[in-house]
Amino acid sequence: MNEDRLLKIIKEKVGEEFIGDDVAFIRWGDEFLLYTVDVLVENVHFKKDWDPYMIGWKTVSVNVSDISAKGGNPLYCLVSLGIKGEEDGFLEKLYEGIRDASEEFGLKVVGGNLSYSRDIFIDLFMVGVSPRRIERGGFEKGEKVVLYGNLGMSRAGLEVLLEGKDRDKWSDIIDIHFKPKTSYYIREHIRKYATASIDISDGLVIDLYRMVERGKYGINLHKDKVERIIKDPLKRYCKHKGCDPLEYVLYGGEDYAVIFTQKKSEPLPTGAEVIGEVVEERAVLLDGKPLERKGFDHFEKNY
Amino acid sequence: MNEDRLLKIIKEKVGEEFIGDDVAFIRWGDEFLLYTVDVLVENVHFKKDWDPYMIGWKTVSVNVSDISAKGGNPLYCLVSLGIKGEEDGFLEKLYEGIRDASEEFGLKVVGGNLSYSRDIFIDLFMVGVSPRRIERGGFEKGEKVVLYGNLGMSRAGLEVLLEGKDRDKWSDIIDIHFKPKTSYYIREHIRKYATASIDISDGLVIDLYRMVERGKYGINLHKDKVERIIKDPLKRYCKHKGCDPLEYVLYGGEDYAVIFTQKKSEPLPTGAEVIGEVVEERAVLLDGKPLERKGFDHFEKNY
Repeated sequence: MNEDRLLKIIKEKVGEEFIGDDVAFIRWGDEFLLYTVDVLVENVHFKKDWDPYMIGWKTVSVNVSDISAKGGNPLYCLVSLGIKGEEDGFLEKLYEGIRDASEEFGLKVVGGNLSYSRDIFIDLFMVGVSPRRIERGGFEKGEKVVLYGNLGMSRAGLEVLLEGKDRDKWSDIIDIHFKPKTSYYIREHIRKYATASIDISDGLVIDLYRMVERGKYGINLHKDKVERIIKDPLKRYCKHKGCDPLEYVLYGGEDYAVIFTQKKSEPLPTGAEVIGEVVEERAVLLDGKPLERKGFDHFEKNY
Repeated sequence: MNEDRLLKIIKEKVGEEFIGDDVAFIRWGDEFLLYTVDVLVENVHFKKDWDPYMIGWKTVSVNVSDISAKGGNPLYCLVSLGIKGEEDGFLEKLYEGIRDASEEFGLKVVGGNLSYSRDIFIDLFMVGVSPRRIERGGFEKGEKVVLYGNLGMSRAGLEVLLEGKDRDKWSDIIDIHFKPKTSYYIREHIRKYATASIDISDGLVIDLYRMVERGKYGINLHKDKVERIIKDPLKRYCKHKGCDPLEYVLYGGEDYAVIFTQKKSEPLPTGAEVIGEVVEERAVLLDGKPLERKGFDHFEKNY
């Protein structure tokens, strides 16, 4: 059982409207309304003893990441909370994180729901708006493949959190786990220039495959450019653990970064990096060699 | 710990935008977009061995009930599903129920999310539209208090389902539990005539108190009229169980009926019943005597 198989069943039942993009695009007058939903579940996405403020912040970020990866402006959200009770200030701190993140991203919390649940879940529904519809597969041969955000750091942060020690030592990667550098800060550039885009949430390679499967071409990553985006804290962490940072960058998961394609001639936004190009061969390649289609799947691996 | 207390904490944190009405009203050009979210959780709202098709149908109904209680037209929904795996066809049958209910109510499923979860949850977000904003507290003295839908039957159906026997004998009340007669069928009347409205989900009396707490007046129920709306299956069930059907009608929960107020001179839609009137005393009364503010709260009582 994995997420792709579950999605296939759902698509068969509810039809093509369930397109499986990062957001649902609904035409409304001259604009599109963008809708998305993403949940954090106790013992799947977080542990009860983690900082509830940060969990609240992350829940908002994860959804903002979906909206802004499509060039949208986030506007409103509804919080559907499953909880056993007040739980020693958990709820207050969670909502402080949701409130502060909403302020950061110009959002309003306009509603929600409360239910009893044995495991806590925080399910956030978000509304955004955009004049354009950017899909996953709209790229053309020769276009640049652009990354904005951090890859691999969130996975390393998750490992530190699960081990439960040295949290101070690795606080910079834990911060990235909870507060990803989302595409919110370049959403206007994406809206103007992107020919296709995807929110990177299950790992770079598997999400690039999801782009390729919707488009007519493939994506070739340049190894030297991918290695150049490995941040110092991840290098230090992998040196300490004896692991390969490139593995974390390619297959990490929960990055909430964006990949988009644009014409070679167009400018790049500050902080973005070109890491590859659109090529004829319909696969995800690293310096011309096909990469395995794998990523992070919490149906196969959860804690 | 109860739901009102949890809501108070959330309102303190995220401010007045979190108004706690059945839907969030967002002005959009000449119209309002209506947003709502409601979840069904395993072992809180349903048991795993209940018919997944009916659980799917109910999830849609519960949210339609919120939108149409405000006179809105339901348009789109997103399904956020927490599940352990495919689980022997559960997912297929659940989505068949969601699909058929969506057709019944003119809705499109446009997106969603999948997560691993130890207990199944089906969290549904719904979008509607209306030219008017109808709040809970807009009623004036002397207006009629109108009911559309079934009260008490859902609670009885729940008891039968939990006991797990004689399901065939009580199939009519089980059907009402899963397929409530929602305000969808009179949404145009509500949009045209209602001065205030509420979706009855936690029990008639507690939800009427929620109206009264938002308004300037009280609501007096006429006992003879309330008794007249008790349906035969509920009478038979209570005779068999030795319980008082009036208790089920006043305090049942999960009814997904609507109460709205309107001017005395205006017409009633087919199937609706006047059960009371708006009065000076700011409480919920039965033939002039205040009723206790209590209802169904799954934070206090869950199974």
